[in-house]
Amino acid sequence: MSALAPVLARLDADLGASLERLFSLIRIKSISTDPAYADECRRAAEWLVADLKSIGFDASVRDTPGHPMVVAHHDGPAGAPHLLFYGHYDVQPVDPVELWHDDPFAASVKEIEPGRKVITGRGSADDKGQLMTFVETCRAWKAVHGSLPCRVTILFEGEEESGSASLKPFLTANAEELKADFALVCDTGMWNRETPAICVGLRGLVGEEIVVKAANRDLHSGEFGGAAANPVRILAKVLADIHDANGRVTIPGFYDGVEETPSQVLQSWETLGETAESFLGPIGLSQPVGERGRTVLEMVWARPTAEFNGISGGYTGKGFKTVIAAEASAKVSFRLVHSQDPAKIREAFRAFVRERIPADCSVEFHPHGGSPAIQLSYDAPFLAKAKQALSDEWPKEAVLLAMGGSIPIVGNFQHMLGMKSLLVGFGLSDDRIHSPNEKYDLASFHKGQRSWARILDALTQ
Amino acid sequence: MSALAPVLARLDADLGASLERLFSLIRIKSISTDPAYADECRRAAEWLVADLKSIGFDASVRDTPGHPMVVAHHDGPAGAPHLLFYGHYDVQPVDPVELWHDDPFAASVKEIEPGRKVITGRGSADDKGQLMTFVETCRAWKAVHGSLPCRVTILFEGEEESGSASLKPFLTANAEELKADFALVCDTGMWNRETPAICVGLRGLVGEEIVVKAANRDLHSGEFGGAAANPVRILAKVLADIHDANGRVTIPGFYDGVEETPSQVLQSWETLGETAESFLGPIGLSQPVGERGRTVLEMVWARPTAEFNGISGGYTGKGFKTVIAAEASAKVSFRLVHSQDPAKIREAFRAFVRERIPADCSVEFHPHGGSPAIQLSYDAPFLAKAKQALSDEWPKEAVLLAMGGSIPIVGNFQHMLGMKSLLVGFGLSDDRIHSPNEKYDLASFHKGQRSWARILDALTQ
Repeated sequence: MSALAPVLARLDADLGASLERLFSLIRIKSISTDPAYADECRRAAEWLVADLKSIGFDASVRDTPGHPMVVAHHDGPAGAPHLLFYGHYDVQPVDPVELWHDDPFAASVKEIEPGRKVITGRGSADDKGQLMTFVETCRAWKAVHGSLPCRVTILFEGEEESGSASLKPFLTANAEELKADFALVCDTGMWNRETPAICVGLRGLVGEEIVVKAANRDLHSGEFGGAAANPVRILAKVLADIHDANGRVTIPGFYDGVEETPSQVLQSWETLGETAESFLGPIGLSQPVGERGRTVLEMVWARPTAEFNGISGGYTGKGFKTVIAAEASAKVSFRLVHSQDPAKIREAFRAFVRERIPADCSVEFHPHGGSPAIQLSYDAPFLAKAKQALSDEWPKEAVLLAMGGSIPIVGNFQHMLGMKSLLVGFGLSDDRIHSPNEKYDLASFHKGQRSWARILDALTQ
Repeated sequence: MSALAPVLARLDADLGASLERLFSLIRIKSISTDPAYADECRRAAEWLVADLKSIGFDASVRDTPGHPMVVAHHDGPAGAPHLLFYGHYDVQPVDPVELWHDDPFAASVKEIEPGRKVITGRGSADDKGQLMTFVETCRAWKAVHGSLPCRVTILFEGEEESGSASLKPFLTANAEELKADFALVCDTGMWNRETPAICVGLRGLVGEEIVVKAANRDLHSGEFGGAAANPVRILAKVLADIHDANGRVTIPGFYDGVEETPSQVLQSWETLGETAESFLGPIGLSQPVGERGRTVLEMVWARPTAEFNGISGGYTGKGFKTVIAAEASAKVSFRLVHSQDPAKIREAFRAFVRERIPADCSVEFHPHGGSPAIQLSYDAPFLAKAKQALSDEWPKEAVLLAMGGSIPIVGNFQHMLGMKSLLVGFGLSDDRIHSPNEKYDLASFHKGQRSWARILDALTQ
């Protein structure tokens, strides 16, 4: 505790100055998707390099074919872990700008309800405010102790909002330099304003487009209807067979590699109070369609799925056409968890489909992406330490959650650099990222800094 | 037999002149869909009126908002039936004209294989050649006997190839004048070059578009996949449930009103030699998908169907989008036979679908058309007479067949004028109607005339 307390005190005392620094960064219009703002992106990278240098980092702007990366290094004591911190300095466009209450690039603090202050501006939450929480922690630690408690590498990307075209080549070219013991990724959120969160699982994805082909041309349904195979009928049967009456996927071997979530984790999810009604109500639904007997959070965080993302066949315009199509197609995706193998899932699905295609018809498969799930072991020591650190800072205990979607950088770190990621962030669901009037709670910014100080302290004990 | 023989002899003797008359009609470019040919359509109607007047008909061009109708009347002996003969004088466009071997409007006779002569030109088969078979029969009968054997009304339409917009209003306005004991419709074909055919059944049609709605917006399949209802999945299940493993439609009450086809009719169909291979082979298929245990001809001529004419939902463009759609839709049609009730089928289908929609989702139905089947009673006396008359003229016995599709005029006659139709025509499957190089076999034209003479004689005995 001796090392931590003065850092926390320093962060509290320096809040006003740290806000001014964040404002300076927000004012730089680093919209990565619009080439007109390329200079602004470089300015943001240069601003960060200068700021990191002022702390004592060995920082540099690193050119790419797109917007530059920022890479910075700071030594730590021997024996302490080496951490890579990731964030992105680029932001989304601000259109429609007339919906903003304030200039999107004139950062300020506003009180939106009694006792709740927020930082306004594009990038305040995504991701400038988030990445600066860590930078401020490093600054405070260095100021108080003259050193950092561990070796830290920082990677700030400038193309996260525009496709990250330069990221993989950069990771490949600089793998040796960037490889750390694990990564801290600060681009996620809290469960709610009182409850911090660590994301320990991200579902993988396998996409398949299937095209069922029957007759060698479109047919008149009067002439051939009742005798000739209809690919829409075949496709509907294939898709209908994929789930059983209990919401379980019927493809043989589909659940190989799926683990049961530890009961204490399931219990902690139950305490979050998310119900089918609260989860589905806002989208106009009420009945979860996943495996019977599992909670809605388990369905989206810890269970694999088969989804039908698109279907098309025959006449789909206005009115009616009595046609039997020559072919029909569907886009099917599988969200994977734990150690499900994307290649095996794809093959099992294809075999399942082929079995259901009549002998005089055929099917084509077009693969679209395949990535395994990311899952931190629930009993990883650094995870327990980070969870305790967050719980110490916030009113409620930190929750280990998962996300139904994917975050590409985490997969890249794992598969390209062999490095696991700790996903911690302080965003809130009402931050309106990518939308007009983006904000970041002042509490997220301030207690986010304090959280990182606690996490660094805990991880280096 | 005394009345018939001289008429047949006269038709044989007059073949050359009858061909010249048909050529004159073919030369008139009565393309109904192209307004540039409106005058030509009127010329064709006027030509027909003049020709019918020359035989002794009370004929007139009757204006409509579109192309004119031709209506003609000729008295017959008291006690004989009153027949309405229907045909159409308009033709399809000739594009692409460069694919024609001869000028499409310069009719001629060509020998296409040893002993097989054909009449070339647009409309030679559809429907100018066909309608002139009956006109020539009337001419010959009148020339030989000075009278016709029964009262005959003729209706020639000029918009059959362009939607028949004026037909229903004209039938309504002139119902009294046009109503006969039954109609002769000459716009169909033979089974093959040796086997004449009478079409006794036309399937009805019920079309329904269903739209399954789930969430109130498109969802990200990472965030909600596994928990939120997917309308494509619901729709696939609904459609898959409509047929059982034996190809039978499972909707309760669906087969109400479906009769078994008389065994002697089924036997006559079997003698036609149509197999699953011969029927499905040309379209690249081999396995009939209708009710198990029935022949392919029974499936398309005498059994009802449920077909899926179109399906659409979610992302259907190139590539992939991990979306869960808010809605998905399908166009479903039912071909009806015998006395199935379109309204009851529609309601039974809707109930079947509603039962399968989860409580938090919904479904919308959009009706598209509904018409009952047309079915002549297999033991109608005039049917037996016509069948015998055709069998007397051609090398093989006439077959009573059905058609999988619909012919609107037949439904209009039945439902608007309370008049059944005898569908007899002499077209062949290689006539290339609607395509370049349309032709009509000289045998169809000549023996078609003789067939009508035999039919008139048989029906008026």
